Amino acid sequence: MKLPNALESLVEAFMAYPGIGRKTAQRYALYTITNLSEESVMEMSEALAIAKKNIHRCPTCGHLTDKERCEVCADESRDTSTIMVVEKSKDVFVLESSENYDGLYHVLDGVLSPMNGVGPSDLNFKGLWKRIEEPTVQEVIIATSATQEGEATAMYLLKVLEKTDLLVTRIGYGVPVGSDLEYADEKTLSKAIENRKKF
Amino acid sequence: MKLPNALESLVEAFMAYPGIGRKTAQRYALYTITNLSEESVMEMSEALAIAKKNIHRCPTCGHLTDKERCEVCADESRDTSTIMVVEKSKDVFVLESSENYDGLYHVLDGVLSPMNGVGPSDLNFKGLWKRIEEPTVQEVIIATSATQEGEATAMYLLKVLEKTDLLVTRIGYGVPVGSDLEYADEKTLSKAIENRKKF
Repeated sequence: MKLPNALESLVEAFMAYPGIGRKTAQRYALYTITNLSEESVMEMSEALAIAKKNIHRCPTCGHLTDKERCEVCADESRDTSTIMVVEKSKDVFVLESSENYDGLYHVLDGVLSPMNGVGPSDLNFKGLWKRIEEPTVQEVIIATSATQEGEATAMYLLKVLEKTDLLVTRIGYGVPVGSDLEYADEKTLSKAIENRKKF
Repeated sequence: MKLPNALESLVEAFMAYPGIGRKTAQRYALYTITNLSEESVMEMSEALAIAKKNIHRCPTCGHLTDKERCEVCADESRDTSTIMVVEKSKDVFVLESSENYDGLYHVLDGVLSPMNGVGPSDLNFKGLWKRIEEPTVQEVIIATSATQEGEATAMYLLKVLEKTDLLVTRIGYGVPVGSDLEYADEKTLSKAIENRKKF
């Protein structure tokens, strides 16, 4: 499908996103021209430029922010004795929505993955080793995913942290709350049984 | 999920597209920040603004173009005796890719849909009535979709055009070429039988 140059550039821009193939990108590009108002399109054009320019990683924890430090690190009411280590910034946004945790975070920006050439030096570990030297820190909660790579990353963290005096914990993995047992896969069930508690 | 303002604006911009809900929009917005290069993001920002500014409808046929007239209308080698009436610009791009047709087009920019308040005055009919007055025009091919609304639009066109001396034809509808009969739905099969030809 040969499109005018200006449309073709837009199609290619949409194709840079995960899961957007050529057909979907063409649909979005044509929708931009025929259905969106000029105002909406200019707003999106600016939102892209502004977000890319203003959003950066918090120098302390690595979380995405548009301020000098992220909202969590800048909030003096947070419990500075606990640092929860997560894979990505999105995990922080999700955990903050659940409003169950008032400690600090540390975003690794990925997981260890030797298969994909991702080693410890590619992740944000150095910042963490520096932070745990602070005398206020008492506990590190490991909250990587229950995937093979998340598990390997957790093991690496444990190996380093067990040499310190810090309490090292891991978030609970098991059957999701509100979900029927029959829908849980075998690995989740096995984790759930392993994590059983006295009733 | 509470996001920094600059990210939230980007999420809302993505949500303006069909089929993109909040979760997908959040994924795209975060992908923009963490995975795309600054160069790609600026290119997309510009592509949006440029496409919206430069792409407009051809004053003759209504097809999308970044030139004064669309590529088809501007091409002097095209057969000006035939006009194919289609619902939308995308149909022209698709038909042009198939390289089977060398006549002209007319884009209605929609279909008649009394249920959604779309009447003849909301579509690009006036331009067509003017074009068919040209003495060069001999045939009008109706190529609206084989949907209820596409059918109603075709009937409306036929009602007006049968008062003229023009040859009015309709593209063939039936089982797609290369497709197994068992996958065709009942309506397509019924159309295919209705459109049968002597072998």
